[in-house]
Order: sequence, then C-alpha cells, then structure tokens
Amino acid sequence: MGISLAGIAQQLDCKIVGDESCLITGVATLQSAEAGQITFFANPRYRRYLLSTKASAVILHPDEQKACPVNAVITSNPYLIYAKVASLLNPVATAQAGCHPSAVIQQGCNIDPSASIGANCSIGANTSIAAGAQIGPGCVIGDNVTIGAETRLMANITVCDAVTIGARVLIQPGAVIGSDGFGFAPDQGKWVKVPQLGSVMIGDDVEIGANTTIDRGALEDTVIEEGVILDNQIQIAHNVRIGAYTAIAGATAIAGSATIGKRCQIGGAVGIVGHLEIVDDVHITAMSLVTGNIKQPGLYSSGTPLAGNKEWRKNAARFGQLDNLARRLKSLEKKLENK
Amino acid sequence: MGISLAGIAQQLDCKIVGDESCLITGVATLQSAEAGQITFFANPRYRRYLLSTKASAVILHPDEQKACPVNAVITSNPYLIYAKVASLLNPVATAQAGCHPSAVIQQGCNIDPSASIGANCSIGANTSIAAGAQIGPGCVIGDNVTIGAETRLMANITVCDAVTIGARVLIQPGAVIGSDGFGFAPDQGKWVKVPQLGSVMIGDDVEIGANTTIDRGALEDTVIEEGVILDNQIQIAHNVRIGAYTAIAGATAIAGSATIGKRCQIGGAVGIVGHLEIVDDVHITAMSLVTGNIKQPGLYSSGTPLAGNKEWRKNAARFGQLDNLARRLKSLEKKLENK
Amino acid sequence: MGISLAGIAQQLDCKIVGDESCLITGVATLQSAEAGQITFFANPRYRRYLLSTKASAVILHPDEQKACPVNAVITSNPYLIYAKVASLLNPVATAQAGCHPSAVIQQGCNIDPSASIGANCSIGANTSIAAGAQIGPGCVIGDNVTIGAETRLMANITVCDAVTIGARVLIQPGAVIGSDGFGFAPDQGKWVKVPQLGSVMIGDDVEIGANTTIDRGALEDTVIEEGVILDNQIQIAHNVRIGAYTAIAGATAIAGSATIGKRCQIGGAVGIVGHLEIVDDVHITAMSLVTGNIKQPGLYSSGTPLAGNKEWRKNAARFGQLDNLARRLKSLEKKLENK
Repeated sequence: MGISLAGIAQQLDCKIVGDESCLITGVATLQSAEAGQITFFANPRYRRYLLSTKASAVILHPDEQKACPVNAVITSNPYLIYAKVASLLNPVATAQAGCHPSAVIQQGCNIDPSASIGANCSIGANTSIAAGAQIGPGCVIGDNVTIGAETRLMANITVCDAVTIGARVLIQPGAVIGSDGFGFAPDQGKWVKVPQLGSVMIGDDVEIGANTTIDRGALEDTVIEEGVILDNQIQIAHNVRIGAYTAIAGATAIAGSATIGKRCQIGGAVGIVGHLEIVDDVHITAMSLVTGNIKQPGLYSSGTPLAGNKEWRKNAARFGQLDNLARRLKSLEKKLENK
Repeated sequence: MGISLAGIAQQLDCKIVGDESCLITGVATLQSAEAGQITFFANPRYRRYLLSTKASAVILHPDEQKACPVNAVITSNPYLIYAKVASLLNPVATAQAGCHPSAVIQQGCNIDPSASIGANCSIGANTSIAAGAQIGPGCVIGDNVTIGAETRLMANITVCDAVTIGARVLIQPGAVIGSDGFGFAPDQGKWVKVPQLGSVMIGDDVEIGANTTIDRGALEDTVIEEGVILDNQIQIAHNVRIGAYTAIAGATAIAGSATIGKRCQIGGAVGIVGHLEIVDDVHITAMSLVTGNIKQPGLYSSGTPLAGNKEWRKNAARFGQLDNLARRLKSLEKKLENK
Repeated sequence: MGISLAGIAQQLDCKIVGDESCLITGVATLQSAEAGQITFFANPRYRRYLLSTKASAVILHPDEQKACPVNAVITSNPYLIYAKVASLLNPVATAQAGCHPSAVIQQGCNIDPSASIGANCSIGANTSIAAGAQIGPGCVIGDNVTIGAETRLMANITVCDAVTIGARVLIQPGAVIGSDGFGFAPDQGKWVKVPQLGSVMIGDDVEIGANTTIDRGALEDTVIEEGVILDNQIQIAHNVRIGAYTAIAGATAIAGSATIGKRCQIGGAVGIVGHLEIVDDVHITAMSLVTGNIKQPGLYSSGTPLAGNKEWRKNAARFGQLDNLARRLKSLEKKLENK
C-alpha cells in the first residue's frame, strides 16, 4: 500500500521536484523519517532537520525548495497538504456494519444498515442513525436523537434525548452532549430546578474533544454550527451558540447564552461569562476571562505574566494598592504643576 | 394534556388577570411563544418582546401587569413560578421499574422493586437502591453504595464503593463520585500512595453536573450537604465540605479539605486552594482564585480585565515592575515633602 | 486481622516507644481514633488533638515523642510511614480473575489468566493485558493496546488503539487515554483534520485521576514517564512529555508539545501553553499561566490576589492604565531631577 509522488501531485494539485515515481508508504517527522516516508517542513525552527532528513520526500513551500536535500512536494500550504497526504495513507478504519449483539436498542429506531453500533451501547427509542455512522463501544444514546451520515462517536459517549448531530461529525471518548443546563430559580434560600426543555444542535463536520460537555438549552437549543472544532474538556453551557469554523482549545468554559462568532480562535482554559456576544474573527489568548461583549475582530488577552514566586508576591501585593498608587501619582503631578 | 390558568393559580398561589379558563399546554420564550403557551417576563432587557408576545399568558411581577398584552399570571417571583409551571407541564419521564436484563448485579443488593436499573449497568455487592430511583444506562455503581429514593443517575456515571447518596438527587452523565483523593507521601523523590479510606456523602436534593468529579476522603468523608447545585466539570477534592444550598458554576476546582459555607454562589472556573474556610453567603466571581480563608459574607474577585492584546502586553509587562513603581512613587513623595 | 506495633516496626523500620505487643486493626485521624487504631501527627496545627487522642498509637517524629500520650511509632517521615501502615491494613481488593461473561473481547487478545476483566467491558483486537491487571466495569480498551502487570483501571475508562500502559498503573474512573490530539490545518477559513498517528506511552507506577484526558501524539507519542501522579480533570494535549515523578494537581491544562521536567509539582488549574520546556524540579502555584520556557528550578506564580469586589474593581480598572502610570511616574522623576 502506498502512493507515488506523481499520484500525490495529481490528487492534491502540487508540483513535484525530483523522482515522481518514488513510492510513499507512510508519514513521519523530519527527524525520524526513513526511506519510503514523506514529511513536511513548515516551521523555520526545524531547518536543521530538513537539511539532514532521511525522508523520501518533503512537502514544503516553493521558497524552501533549494534547501531540500530529497524529493520535494511544492505547495504554498505544506501543513495542509501534509494533512491530506497523511489521510490518504491512513484512511479511517471502518467498523463492521450492523449492531453488536450486546448493544441494547429500544423500539422505533431507524438505523441505517451501513451504520455500526458497538459493543455494550444503549440506543433509546425512535432514534435515527444515518448511513455509515459509527457508534463506538459503551456509548449511550437517548430517545429521539438524530445522528448524521458518517458521523463517528468513539466510545463511552453520552448523547441525551432529542439531540441532533450532523454529518461527518467526530466525537472523542467521554463527551456528553445534551445534559441539563444549569438553570435554577431561587426560592427562599433554596434552589428550584428549571426544566431544560431545549436541545442541542451540532452542525456538519464538527469535532468534539474527549470529556467535553455541551448542555441542552433551557427553552431553545444550544447550537454548534458547522465546522466548529472543540478540544478536550470544554464546558459549553445552555443556549450558547458557536459560529461556524470557530476553534476552541482545551479546558475552556463558556457560560449560558454566550454567542460566539464565526472563525474565532479561543485559547485553552479561557473563561467566557454568560449573556454576551463575541463577533466573528476574534482570537483570545489562553486563560483570558471575557466578561463583556467583544465588538471588533482582533486578538484579546487578560491575566498577568509568570514570575518567580518571591518577585510575584511583591508585585501582586501592590496590585491591591493600584488605585491608591494612581491617586497618589495624580496628586504629585498636581503639586508639581502648581509649583 | 395541559392546565388552565385557574389551575396554575390554585396550585402555585398566583393571581390571574384575564381569562382563567385559558388552557396552557406548553412553555416557550416571549419571542417564540404561540397560542396555548405560557412564558415569563423577568428581565427588563426583553420588554420589547413582552409587548409583542403571542403567548396565551405571561408570568410577571405586579408592577409589569399593565404592560402585558395577554393573560397575566401575577407573582412576585416570575422565574420561580415559571420553573414550577414548566415542571407541571413537563413531568420527568419515569423509567420502567426493574433491572434491564443486560445489567449485571452482584450479590447482596437491596434494590427496591420500583427502582429502575438501565441497560449495561454494573451494580456492586451489597448496594442499596431505594424506591423510585433511576439508574440510567452504562452506570457503574460499586459495592456497599447507598442511593436514596427518587434519585436519578442519567448515564455513564461512576459511583465508587461505599458512597452514600441522598434522596431526590440528580446526577448528569459522566460524573464520577468517590474516586480516590490525590494523596501521596513523598519518599526520596518518589510518591507513595496514601490509601483513600473515607467516602463521599451526598445530601438530599443535590444536583451534580456532567463530568463533575468528587473524590472520596482520605480518612473521613467528602461531604456535599443538602440542596447543593453543582454545574458541569467541577473538580472537588478529598475531604472538601460544601454547605447546604451552595451553587457552583462549571469548571470550578476545589482543593483538598476546603470547607465552603451554606448558600454561597461560586462562579465558573474559580480555583479554591486546600485547607481553607469560606463562611456562609459568600459570592465569588468567575475565574477568581481563593488562596486564604474568607471570613465575611460578600462578593469577592481576582484577575485582570480583558483588553486588546497589544495594550494588554504593555500593561502586563508593567505588572512585573509594580513593586518598583510603588517604591519610586514613595521616594518622589518624600522628595517633594522635604522641599 | 491486624498487626502489632512490633510487626510495624519490623516491616517499616521504625522504633516503638510503648507496648510493642499492642494490636493495630485500623487507621483514623488524631481526633476520631479509638482503641485499636493508629494515627499520625505531622502538622503542628493539630497538636491539641495529639494531646487528647484516644488512638492506641501515634506515628510521629522523634522530636514530638515526649508529647505523645499513647504508644508512639517513631520515624523521621510520619506521613510516609502512615501511608505504608494504612496500606498494610487496607490491602487493595483483588478482583476475581478471568473475564466477566458480559465483557466483549475481540480476537487476537493476550489476556493473562490472572487478570480480571469486569462487567460490560469491551476489549479490542490484539490487545495484551498482563498478569494481575484489573479492568473495571464499563471500560473500553481499543485494538493493539498493551497493559502492564498489576495495573488497575477502575471503571468507565477509555483507552484508545495502540496505547501502551506500564505496570502498577492506577487509573481512576472516566479517564480517557489516547483520544485524538487537536490538530487541524487551516484551509481557506475551514479546518482539515490532521490524522493523529502517534500514541500514548504511560510509564510504570503512574496514577491518573478521574476524567483526566491524555491525547495521542500527532506523529510521535505523548509520554508520561514512570511515577508521575496526575489528579482529576487534567488535560494533556498531543506530544506532551511529563518527566518522572512529577505531580500535577486537578484541572490543569497542558497544551501540545510542552515538555515538563522530572519531579515538578504543578498546582491545580494551571495553564501551560504549547511548544515550551520546563526543567526538572519546578514548582508552580495554583492557577498560574506558563507562556514561556522555565529554565531554572524554583517556585513560580502568576495572577492577582483575591479581594472584595468593590475594591478589586477599582484596582483592576487601574491595571489597564499601568503603562500610562509608569510613564507618568518616569516623567515626574525627570522633572524633579531637572530641578
């Protein structure tokens, strides 16, 4: 199994410099690649590895072609072409069609014969699972769920009642989709649960990370638009909407009814409070806290830099005096002006 | 199925202005409600939707009655009455009593005949499950566990050995109750595990969010008192105690042996270090870090505000000079005084 | 069942002061211990409990021996000896060897007859599980996985294809090992998945907390070296390497290709950005953000202290003026110099 450089050039619209008949059977890093393997060069930090690579071919930008000691696949976006070559050489394993005998399937389901339901799954009543979908072992799917074609749920995932998941979605293990939103009315010092009657809509081509949780809406739906990519352990509260092709890194938490635009890039461990709007094309650095609307595209941050603890303690103590310091500075300025 | 406004007034002790015989069959938002549906008005931001609502009735405060274009349900706490009406109209689905044949149940269990044990569950030895309890598919319950009446575990939840859970508790999918606390003794650069011999006590009427984890105590128990509500992905370490009716938002992490008072409200992604005490009625804003005791009720915060990254970088760099700046300011003040 | 103080002294190389024949049957805290129980004294805060303890023996430092009102077990590291005594008195329950009939096991597996596979597990093809390993109920193990001797997976854990786990590893419920790393190539505003072809290597004697996630590498492996201890809800991205005996507290998130040294101690809810290096013996306080290499051992921090919200708001607002304040201070200093 493998593909020639000529085949790569043809399928992925690249230019080859070198031996077009060279057969590629796998991918590897610049440092570890051996004969028969292809790699890519996109980060100038790794230039020294390019010069000594043992790969049979390297995917790189036309500007770097001269430095390439082996066959070159020339493209303006080496990482993208690498991703596509790696997918060609490592196609997703197709699970066996049909329902494993240990799976428990309630009545009224509409499961395409080409779909695969794994060992020890539980599928609720009246649920639809489309062609080519793969539900891995240990998944629990509720009643009235809709799962689109070629969508894959890896393992031990929970999808609650009435959730809708699009086509070609990939969900990593342990994720929970459609748990109750955190809605309670105060009643004389106690909490009364507000029924969470909305659901979750997941668009096509979404990826959801391991142990990520997406709550169902209180009345209307929580919505993850098409092409969104969510890393592990992200918490998405009820009635959040995430715009198409937005990417969110791990451990970020988004509170209820926040609306996030399209093509945003949100760093890891970011906090976003509820009932606010972030426009399209906003980037947020890791561990920032967003407490208000963001109305302009751009890069945003909060927090303070890491320091040695002793130095940090001195400066952090001064943070609590900042307003006082600013007032004293103002007062000094006035005194000097008056002289 | 439905209930008349007169029925709502009688059951929930409200006043109706308008047609008491109007039949209500569902709930919706002010904007989307149609004939037959009831909604509520509690947030002045949505006043324009109140004026044009197509709902058959609106639950609102007496002060807002004049603005209501349709039947009105008058109450001093519209959100609470909405929660109760929504529950009346959407009763919790009762799972079928009995143990699903695919569930594996060890010897010595005491499972009430009215309880429901879902598909592919595993129940350890000598575990008690009280009347009306519902254990959803894929749950793993250990040995010697006690689960109270009408408590519901949704799906894929793990409850470890000897944990005690009260009545009417609701646990969302993927939660883990009773995992080992993080206790290790250092031994010449290595770690020796300290057996975690306590357990977890969950009081009545607690709600626990999806993928939230609550560790068992080292010697004594981790305790979640009655009526506590915990959102998703909260981490509660060994020997933590959380006081009754405290609410904690998603992704908050609480370290070992912290004691949190009653009726506290803790924002999302807050960090609370170990071995400290927080009194009753403390509120903490999102993503704050608590490093010492909190001895007075009130609202607490830490962190810095979000800004454009370029501006933030300039200011963040100055954070590392804060002590220096404060000293220089002090020195200027002295110079000016001496003149 | 129990052990005499003489037995403890012999097995754990301690000195007994008092009745060596005293039989110990359990452990407890200083405050709650009763006759027959042993406890330890390591924190001076609890001195008053030492003086009134009802334990049959106390493990403590030679300097504290005089204050001990009961039999004393003398050692320079009381917490370590306590951990070992507690383990002697509470040996880990051994699950029944063999595969539970409800477990689903694919072809080509090599499962040692002394290993235990729990109810409703799913084991993929060609997976090896060594002697004495215990796979708890509801676990999903992929194809070509290797699990070492005496390793225990508690319940509802997912281990993806081709992951290697060492000996004597303990994994708490809900953890996910080997999910896809978060790798995507941008393509005209959309994301193209980069196949995650590496795996995860977990060394011997590692502990992994509940709902912790460890992604597989993109090309090479994510590596957790021997003796590392990871608390709950930690997120470890692809190609991270964590050095031997490092301890990481709950809810910490580590981005891709970060390399963390040996014997580090990382607090809870810390964020570590990708592609950086932290040397051995680094300690980081809770909720700090690490954005660059750490080249020297020591204790590091970031963040601001908790305060009352009103006071915090005033100071936080000034954070956005810090650079301006510093410039104005500099300008005042110049003015005064020129006079």
